[in-house]
Amino acid sequence: MIIDCHGHYTVLPKAHDAWREAQKAAFKAGEPPPPYPTISDDEIRETIEANQLRLIKERGADMTIFSPRASAMAPHVGDAAVAREWAMHCNDLIARVVALFPETFVGVCMLPQSPGSDLTASIDELRRCVGMGFIGCNLNPDPGGGHFKSPPLTDRYWYPFYEVMTELDVPAMIHVSGSCNPAMHATGAYYIAADTIAFMQLLEGNLFADFPTLRFIIPHGGGAVPYHWGRYRGLADMLKKPALDGHLMNNVFFDTCVYHQPGINLLADVIETKNILFGSEMVGAVRGIDPQTGFHFDDTKRYVDALEISDAARAAIFAGNARKVFPRLDAQLKARGL
Amino acid sequence: MIIDCHGHYTVLPKAHDAWREAQKAAFKAGEPPPPYPTISDDEIRETIEANQLRLIKERGADMTIFSPRASAMAPHVGDAAVAREWAMHCNDLIARVVALFPETFVGVCMLPQSPGSDLTASIDELRRCVGMGFIGCNLNPDPGGGHFKSPPLTDRYWYPFYEVMTELDVPAMIHVSGSCNPAMHATGAYYIAADTIAFMQLLEGNLFADFPTLRFIIPHGGGAVPYHWGRYRGLADMLKKPALDGHLMNNVFFDTCVYHQPGINLLADVIETKNILFGSEMVGAVRGIDPQTGFHFDDTKRYVDALEISDAARAAIFAGNARKVFPRLDAQLKARGL
Repeated sequence: MIIDCHGHYTVLPKAHDAWREAQKAAFKAGEPPPPYPTISDDEIRETIEANQLRLIKERGADMTIFSPRASAMAPHVGDAAVAREWAMHCNDLIARVVALFPETFVGVCMLPQSPGSDLTASIDELRRCVGMGFIGCNLNPDPGGGHFKSPPLTDRYWYPFYEVMTELDVPAMIHVSGSCNPAMHATGAYYIAADTIAFMQLLEGNLFADFPTLRFIIPHGGGAVPYHWGRYRGLADMLKKPALDGHLMNNVFFDTCVYHQPGINLLADVIETKNILFGSEMVGAVRGIDPQTGFHFDDTKRYVDALEISDAARAAIFAGNARKVFPRLDAQLKARGL
Repeated sequence: MIIDCHGHYTVLPKAHDAWREAQKAAFKAGEPPPPYPTISDDEIRETIEANQLRLIKERGADMTIFSPRASAMAPHVGDAAVAREWAMHCNDLIARVVALFPETFVGVCMLPQSPGSDLTASIDELRRCVGMGFIGCNLNPDPGGGHFKSPPLTDRYWYPFYEVMTELDVPAMIHVSGSCNPAMHATGAYYIAADTIAFMQLLEGNLFADFPTLRFIIPHGGGAVPYHWGRYRGLADMLKKPALDGHLMNNVFFDTCVYHQPGINLLADVIETKNILFGSEMVGAVRGIDPQTGFHFDDTKRYVDALEISDAARAAIFAGNARKVFPRLDAQLKARGL
């Protein structure tokens, strides 16, 4: 079985995107947003069948852990009420995709974060979504959109949310949204920088002493972290922290969204198998075909297939680790006899 | 011959550091700073002989391209006048190190950047330092200190400085300073994020069409870039830019400040030899001994020695590429018959 832990609903029914534009315009004008449009099941089926479902089948995966489009979460837009309504509609759409294709998709929710607000609305939305069968969430460490003004992930600001994550036994993928900083391209700079910064925040702190079962996935192969694994091991030493395996690596996981073979080879070389989850983030940041291979850059299954590792290790990366990190997924699969 | 392209003067005469504190305090109090102290040649010799010089000899390098301590450049402190005086004293100290140890050190200057100011003072200081024999500069893409509010490196804001770099035929290492952002550790998060962001700024723009001979070194192994080389090749394709080799890689170089063997292996695997310059940044970010190897994390010469590459490629990484990127160094070495 092959579970892609990192997929966003990136090609959406047009009415959904149009409503978002209307919502933003209404906020600017100081008016209430228009009612959310009726979107038929067929419209949802069309977008999924032409994109993610087609590629999942073509590439030979079985299931995608699916969440709203990350670049459009945009918590810095509008205010807390705007963020809340937008998150609910986005998550409801994911729930409908899962209901239409229950064998292929399982939901992860975005959160109605808003810069400067506390996490009450995010807690409410996480509970609502888990109640609908969602198995995790995407947590944005920089809802301001590109200037890194939020408290580090180890700050007590986040603790009420972590308490509910722990209670519900759901992990979070640490994932920023679009950049509103002209010096920082979203998928080429902001995402990778934020992944790296998040890891170092965790390294500097002692969060998992307070929350021993809290689990984070740092996407895009962990940002720069595996490439600089020696630096991070050395910094833990300099900062008088425990070795990384006990300090962070029972709680932090990296996906395989690294779009060439040498990068995946490095990831598998320096990071323990148990900390690697198969992911592709398709259809997402990089949509073209690599002229060096003739295949899509983001067809990361090929890179994992080519790793010189045991069958057991490959099975763990493809599915076993995801079932451990997302116990609610494991329970759903077991209930289906899988 | 082995040239380390990335060394900072990190263990300094105490009077120099004390003056900086006095300068900051005077600025806060609205008073002029005290006069800069007299520092003897012996004091400088002591700090160098006990640290960089000792390690250069122990590890078997010949020469270090030496610049002021990066984390203390701190252009966000004080105002433009504070930045200018601090930069001049720091660079003068580098000039004295070079005068005392001319066979081992060659100077690269820091710049009196100041958030919101133009680059006139930086141009003046670059000219002054090149007049003293310096061969390059460190250019800070985020003088604000951790919120990335400066224009991207491709913005015309930087062009007057690039014109002078081109005229003087000196490269710049893109290097941020200390972080004033509690969410961003300097050497573990900010440095690596800034390296990655800088590369993506260059990818998005077309700077080297305007300045075909401009040269940048992106330190710390290019941040996350080599690990995500497929992503960057794919993004260039999506953004309808030329392939990276012609678009950026005649002008952008990475050092070897990656503190473990698998990282250096990846760097040498995916990045052309001509774009890699030996560097260690010692004594710097990571000062301990790697328990996995028994050697210092930042003894990067060992990793380059262990690469399975030709002797010619190793010689290029150790010295030949630095002599091309820093033509003023090459001229100085040739004048000495080297």
